[in-house]
Amino acid sequence: MSWEDNVRKVVPYVPGEQPNKSNMIKLNTNECPYPPAPGVHQAVRDFDIDKLRLYPSTSAEPLADALANYYQVNKNQLFIGVGSDDVLAIAFLTFFNSDKPMLFPDITYSFYDVWAELYRMPYKMIPLDADFKIQKEDYMVPNGGVILANPNAPTGEQANLADIEEIIRANQDVVVIVDEAYVDFGGESALPLINKYENLLVVQTFSKSRAMAGLRVGYAFGNEKLIQYMNDVKFSFNSYTMNTPALQFAVAAVEDEAYFKETTKKMIATRERSKTELKKLGFMFTDSKSNFIFATHPKYKATALQDMLREKNIYVRHFTKKRIDNYLRISIGTDAEMDILFDTLREYMK
Amino acid sequence: MSWEDNVRKVVPYVPGEQPNKSNMIKLNTNECPYPPAPGVHQAVRDFDIDKLRLYPSTSAEPLADALANYYQVNKNQLFIGVGSDDVLAIAFLTFFNSDKPMLFPDITYSFYDVWAELYRMPYKMIPLDADFKIQKEDYMVPNGGVILANPNAPTGEQANLADIEEIIRANQDVVVIVDEAYVDFGGESALPLINKYENLLVVQTFSKSRAMAGLRVGYAFGNEKLIQYMNDVKFSFNSYTMNTPALQFAVAAVEDEAYFKETTKKMIATRERSKTELKKLGFMFTDSKSNFIFATHPKYKATALQDMLREKNIYVRHFTKKRIDNYLRISIGTDAEMDILFDTLREYMK
Repeated sequence: MSWEDNVRKVVPYVPGEQPNKSNMIKLNTNECPYPPAPGVHQAVRDFDIDKLRLYPSTSAEPLADALANYYQVNKNQLFIGVGSDDVLAIAFLTFFNSDKPMLFPDITYSFYDVWAELYRMPYKMIPLDADFKIQKEDYMVPNGGVILANPNAPTGEQANLADIEEIIRANQDVVVIVDEAYVDFGGESALPLINKYENLLVVQTFSKSRAMAGLRVGYAFGNEKLIQYMNDVKFSFNSYTMNTPALQFAVAAVEDEAYFKETTKKMIATRERSKTELKKLGFMFTDSKSNFIFATHPKYKATALQDMLREKNIYVRHFTKKRIDNYLRISIGTDAEMDILFDTLREYMK
Repeated sequence: MSWEDNVRKVVPYVPGEQPNKSNMIKLNTNECPYPPAPGVHQAVRDFDIDKLRLYPSTSAEPLADALANYYQVNKNQLFIGVGSDDVLAIAFLTFFNSDKPMLFPDITYSFYDVWAELYRMPYKMIPLDADFKIQKEDYMVPNGGVILANPNAPTGEQANLADIEEIIRANQDVVVIVDEAYVDFGGESALPLINKYENLLVVQTFSKSRAMAGLRVGYAFGNEKLIQYMNDVKFSFNSYTMNTPALQFAVAAVEDEAYFKETTKKMIATRERSKTELKKLGFMFTDSKSNFIFATHPKYKATALQDMLREKNIYVRHFTKKRIDNYLRISIGTDAEMDILFDTLREYMK
C-alpha cells in the first residue's frame, strides 16, 4: 500500500492566466480597470506595521462593522472570507450534505462542479436554454441545494429577481445560494430577501466592482442561524482567514461610495459602448449586466481571435466547454483599452 | 424537512481571546513580542496600491521564491497557505481519507481533532506519557495518517528527531505531518528528511518566530508529488488564497535573517530566564523549546492564577481539557513584560 492510496484526488479549477507584462491589455479575468478608492492610500499609510505581530480580529473588524453599516444588516447576518471563492467553498461544505443532487446550470461559474467534486457531493448541471437563460421550473425538483450566479458567468445574463425568489421559495428545505459577484454593474440584488427566506445566502466580492482582486475579500449575507452554521465550519477550518491588511484596507473601499458609484458607472458606460462596437464588427452576445461581454462571431473562430489578440498583447478568456467553445469572454477595460481592442479586431477583419 | 437537516454541524476550534487593550500584557496566543523585521516598513512603503485591482500571483510569488531560496528547496517542494492552520486544513483534506484512524497525541494542538471531526475522519488520540512525552511505538500501528507537533503544543516538549524519523519510516503507507510552528525556538526541524521520505509533510509558520501572526502566512515542505496533491486540493478550494500584501510584506521578513536570529535568540534567553523565575515561584513545567512555558503550581489553581492575572491586565492561556486543566500556557513576552508577570505572581503568592 502507498500513501497515495488515501489521497483525495481532484481535478482543480483553472483560473485565468495572470500574465505580468508591462504593456498588456488584460481583459481575461474581469478585474476592474480602475485603481482602488483613493482612501486606500491613506489606509496603507496609516497601517500600523508593528501590530502585524498580533493575530487579526477573529470577528473581522473593522471590516465587519463597515460592511454591516454600508449594507444595513446586522453583523450576525454577515460572513466574510478570502474572496468569494473562500465564502463559497465554506458554504458548499456547510450546506450541501444531502444525498440528493445539488443543482446549478451547465453554463455557469466553473468552480461550482469543482467544489462538488472536491467534497464528493452529488450534483446535476441543468442546461440553460438556447439563449443562455435559466428556466425556473428546472430548479423546482427534489434537490440537495441550489446555486445560481446572478448575473451569470461567463454569460453576463441577468435573471429576473422574481424568478430567483420563486426558486428560493420553492426550495425552503435546502439552502439556495445566489452568487452576485457581478451584481454592482446593473444587476438587482437578492439581499433584501434574506429577511424573508432563511434558506438564502447572497454572496458578493471586492474583486470586481471594488477593484481589490489582490486583497482577497468576499462576503455573504444570510439569516443569523445560517451565518452561524457557516462560521462554525469556518472556525473548524481556519480561525483567522482575514489578515490585518485586508481587514483595514478594505474598509476604505467600502467607505468611499462616491468613487464606487463613479467607477461602476464608467464601466457600465464602457460596456454599453462596447456592445455597439462589437455589434458593428459582427459579434453576437448576450445582454450582459456584468463587467464583461460574452461574445461569438459567425465568421471567426473564438480561439483564432484569442490567439491573434494575444500576439498583440491583448488577453481575453476562452473556455473549452461544449456549447460555449466558440465564445470569448471579454472583460471591460478602460475606454482607451477597449478602443485598442476594437481597432485590432477591425484591422484583423478587414 | 428543513434546510438545517443537511447542514454540517461541527464544534469549532476556539482560538485564544484577542483582547485589544492599551496596557495589556498579552501572553495568551504565543505571538512574538517584537515587531516584524524592519524591512517590512520598506515593503509597505513600496507597496503598489493600484495593483490591488489585479488578482495576486497564483504561484504565490514573490514569497515562494524567497522561501525556496531561504530554505534551499525547490519551489515544487513548497506549499504556501493562509497561516499554518490553512496549510493543515488543506493537508488533512488531501491526505487523511482512510477508513483507519489517523493518530495524534491526546495533548497537542487542539485543532487536530476539530479538522478530523469537520471532515468526518476517524481518529484516535494516543495518551502522552506522564511526562507529556510521545512513545514512538504508539504510532507504529495500523493507521490512516499521523500528525505530531514538534515541539508539541501546549507542552513545548521537543521529541527526539531520531524518534520522529522512526515514526515516518514505519508509516510509509500513510502521510506523516510534522507541525513545526515552534521549531525556530531551539527545536530541530525534520525538513532535511523530505528528500528521504516521500510521505513526510513539514509545516511551519510566520505567526510566531517571524512576528507576523496578523499577516496569515504558513508554509509546508514535502516531496513534489505530495505538494502537487495538496495544490490540486487547494486549487479546488480557492485559487487565490494569498493576498498581494501578504505575498509582498512576508518577503521582507524572510530576507532579514539577522533580525530573525536576533529576536529568536532574545526570546530563547527570556524563556530560559523565565524558567528560573517560575521555578523560584514554585511552578513545575516541561523543558519547553517553544516560545511559551506550560506550567502548573502545586499550591495554586491554574484558573485562580489566570483570573488574578487577568485582573492585572495580564493574559495567559488555560485549557479545560483533562490532564492539563491545572496548567497555564504562558507565552514568552519581552523581558519587561515577564518581569511584571513575575512581580505580580510573587506579590500574589506572598
